[in-house]
Amino acid sequence: MNNKQLESLVHKEIPITQALDIRIEEITDQSIRVEAPFEANKNIHNTAFAGSIYTVATIAGWSLVTSLAMAQGLEGSVVLAKADIKYIKPINGDIVAKCSIKDTDSIDTFASSFRRKKRARLSLAVEVVEDGVIKALLNANFALVGN
Amino acid sequence: MNNKQLESLVHKEIPITQALDIRIEEITDQSIRVEAPFEANKNIHNTAFAGSIYTVATIAGWSLVTSLAMAQGLEGSVVLAKADIKYIKPINGDIVAKCSIKDTDSIDTFASSFRRKKRARLSLAVEVVEDGVIKALLNANFALVGN
Repeated sequence: MNNKQLESLVHKEIPITQALDIRIEEITDQSIRVEAPFEANKNIHNTAFAGSIYTVATIAGWSLVTSLAMAQGLEGSVVLAKADIKYIKPINGDIVAKCSIKDTDSIDTFASSFRRKKRARLSLAVEVVEDGVIKALLNANFALVGN
Repeated sequence: MNNKQLESLVHKEIPITQALDIRIEEITDQSIRVEAPFEANKNIHNTAFAGSIYTVATIAGWSLVTSLAMAQGLEGSVVLAKADIKYIKPINGDIVAKCSIKDTDSIDTFASSFRRKKRARLSLAVEVVEDGVIKALLNANFALVGN
């Protein structure tokens, strides 16, 4: 599934993501970049809205886990169990969320755990960046639940 | 400022809240109830979207702090510094977020701290409820920053 197919899936599964104009810009086996334009997500102070920043970051995580599950042939729904976010500095332009899984062991554990129990968890760190600076940091805990 | 005036302020300050159809249903000196209809915020599994749940809950906190600051004559902008959320059970209808400050001392400390330093912080717990059951729980840390 390429980035545009994944984006269509996100827009279909979660219609409100269309209003935020969320775009999947890049997807690989272990990484993703998701963006949303400033215009749709700014507040009156001309900074990106905290709720939009959180949503773009969690969609990055959700999409990466969904893509990863498909690639491994794991059939289930990805749900967000819990998350925490720190807003480090204001964002004055587009929202750009990046996530990459450096530790491939965690993917193997996730996949084997799901095959055994039809349920598995994966924690991801998502960075929201602007001009090379991390502006917000999300830690999110996803569950893949067998259908 | 009554609930409808506060709702207009939220919609003006943060335009994307109109797409989520966020409504301030009730506001008192120390409590708030904010809602968003299921239809605009559901996903394909017919449950409320995690990003919308977070956004409605943080808007409840943001609006309560904004209203409280106005009532105390504290002039500044309310910004969200950090937050964590736990999704306890799926929500199958409208998103209803409730927050009330039981400890009035924390309001006094917040106000006096802002008067002294033109900056103050307030932590709030927001419950997202359905049929009397807490479905999600947000802890959010807001800062009031002098203009």
